[in-house]
Amino acid sequence: MKRLSLAVIGATGMVGGFFVKVLEERNFPATDLKFYASPRSAGKKILFKNKEYNILALNDDIFNEDIDIALFAAGGDISAQYAPMLAKKGVVCIDNSSKFRMDASVPLVVPEVNADEAKKHDGIIANPNCSTIQSVVALAPLQKAFGIKRVSYTTYQAVSGAGQEGANDLQRGLDGLSHQKFSHPIYNNVIPQIDIFTENGYTGEEMKMIKETRKILGVQDLPVTATCVRVPIFNAHSVSINVELVNTFDVKDVVQVLQNASGVVVMNDWAKGEYPMPITADGKDEVYIGRIRRDESIANGLNMWVVADNVRKGAATNAVQIAELLI
Amino acid sequence: MKRLSLAVIGATGMVGGFFVKVLEERNFPATDLKFYASPRSAGKKILFKNKEYNILALNDDIFNEDIDIALFAAGGDISAQYAPMLAKKGVVCIDNSSKFRMDASVPLVVPEVNADEAKKHDGIIANPNCSTIQSVVALAPLQKAFGIKRVSYTTYQAVSGAGQEGANDLQRGLDGLSHQKFSHPIYNNVIPQIDIFTENGYTGEEMKMIKETRKILGVQDLPVTATCVRVPIFNAHSVSINVELVNTFDVKDVVQVLQNASGVVVMNDWAKGEYPMPITADGKDEVYIGRIRRDESIANGLNMWVVADNVRKGAATNAVQIAELLI
Repeated sequence: MKRLSLAVIGATGMVGGFFVKVLEERNFPATDLKFYASPRSAGKKILFKNKEYNILALNDDIFNEDIDIALFAAGGDISAQYAPMLAKKGVVCIDNSSKFRMDASVPLVVPEVNADEAKKHDGIIANPNCSTIQSVVALAPLQKAFGIKRVSYTTYQAVSGAGQEGANDLQRGLDGLSHQKFSHPIYNNVIPQIDIFTENGYTGEEMKMIKETRKILGVQDLPVTATCVRVPIFNAHSVSINVELVNTFDVKDVVQVLQNASGVVVMNDWAKGEYPMPITADGKDEVYIGRIRRDESIANGLNMWVVADNVRKGAATNAVQIAELLI
Repeated sequence: MKRLSLAVIGATGMVGGFFVKVLEERNFPATDLKFYASPRSAGKKILFKNKEYNILALNDDIFNEDIDIALFAAGGDISAQYAPMLAKKGVVCIDNSSKFRMDASVPLVVPEVNADEAKKHDGIIANPNCSTIQSVVALAPLQKAFGIKRVSYTTYQAVSGAGQEGANDLQRGLDGLSHQKFSHPIYNNVIPQIDIFTENGYTGEEMKMIKETRKILGVQDLPVTATCVRVPIFNAHSVSINVELVNTFDVKDVVQVLQNASGVVVMNDWAKGEYPMPITADGKDEVYIGRIRRDESIANGLNMWVVADNVRKGAATNAVQIAELLI
């Protein structure tokens, strides 16, 4: 077995914990594993394939370690502090933060869509935004088969997208306590703001969906708009996608293209009341697509409903899939 | 004071209860009031402006009563059974069900939008679908100022839209019990189906929004599409509206047009994190609009976020406003 040393940075966070879980589930062929977290978690233990590992404190000592691939799930500041230097030392860094996603020299990769981009890395590969990942998994096969003219996203995003603190905030609401993480109560409410507002009145999350979709689909001026909304559910994001295709299509051909697409599960038998929901996708690695129907209000218009586990396919699973491309 | 006899049909239901509440709040100038419900509620009492009324059993005896205006909130079957006959006897029936909404001879009225239509009634006036009402209150001023080319709706609808049973189903989920009303659990989930599926893969709710928008805005072939989704909140619907206007516009002019619109509260200071949410609109009679921003993906494109109390403006308040137009 070839030597392969893998490090997980931020292994004790909610998303980092799923990185570890998904590596284990997918039987990732590392010969050496290192789990890093902030100094306050150092010394704690982590169980991986029935073997106990010590959590290591993340500091400059990491630059002296022999690591092949580092998965970053500790936020943008940690990525900015450690990834470029590790990359220079030959470590391939797969970063879940938004820090490097729009850097021209950094591939932004969804393996089902643009796996070849991963090979072009210069030491850092970015894992896209959660809502974007599931959306482009649905759009890329349509882009290939029919061409895409314009995309309009409207999202229903779970609190797990804001990490453990997001989940805690919904739980606080359920327990009758005040919110702490979000700007407003999320229990019994929906909040049409994810991330901070940018100059044009769009939120950071909306701009991520717009820009990252263009980069991943490889069309720098693709017309995309987005409205991103937090809903009071614990896990799995839903995205209502309204898309104008370039060529004419039969809806049954769209369904077939999606059924044949990698990483996709089509649940579209509406006559039987079948469609995906957050409870469908929670805990799964695939992207679920349903409500596929013609939008009669515009030429070559299509509506579809795309659901995925944002912590898995939207973060951990996608990052581990990228790592698998490297070996 | 002019004699005015008003009847509420279905006064003991969740929506009917709000009809009674709103009549009281708005000090509706009825000189005589009758509250009807199913026989099992007959004999119960209802308090209106500190006066006690007996709930009357709805049966054919109503045809012998001297009633000027009847507000129907007892479902489509009851409306179909009683409204046409009452209309023939000179009673003006304002119907909250979907039964007569698309009948060419029945005005479909949102007072802020098409009050004049109410005068053209032939005994029945229909109260539109809840999501549609709040949407056209936002769209009509833009139609007048800039023209509307196409509308795409994506909704976040509260369980109160399914009446008391809908609210009970969310409560059951919160209490750890199984769902009974909806096809799937609504607690910790979102359901992309409201009403039954129609032949084209759209749900009844989506087709209501499409057809009723066209009728109320008076453009029979207006391109409209919709995706309607139930979210786990008790009350107040949100609609993300993506609209293409006919003429060019400055966003600040759009904001001003909406600020000057009747029945609208604009909450759009995004730099201060201001936007409406269900908790903003719950218990209110106005339509709240925010997140007003240009959609750069298409010519003259606009995104906005429209929230209203679906039981009030989406049902009871709108019906009572229609009744007020008649006096």
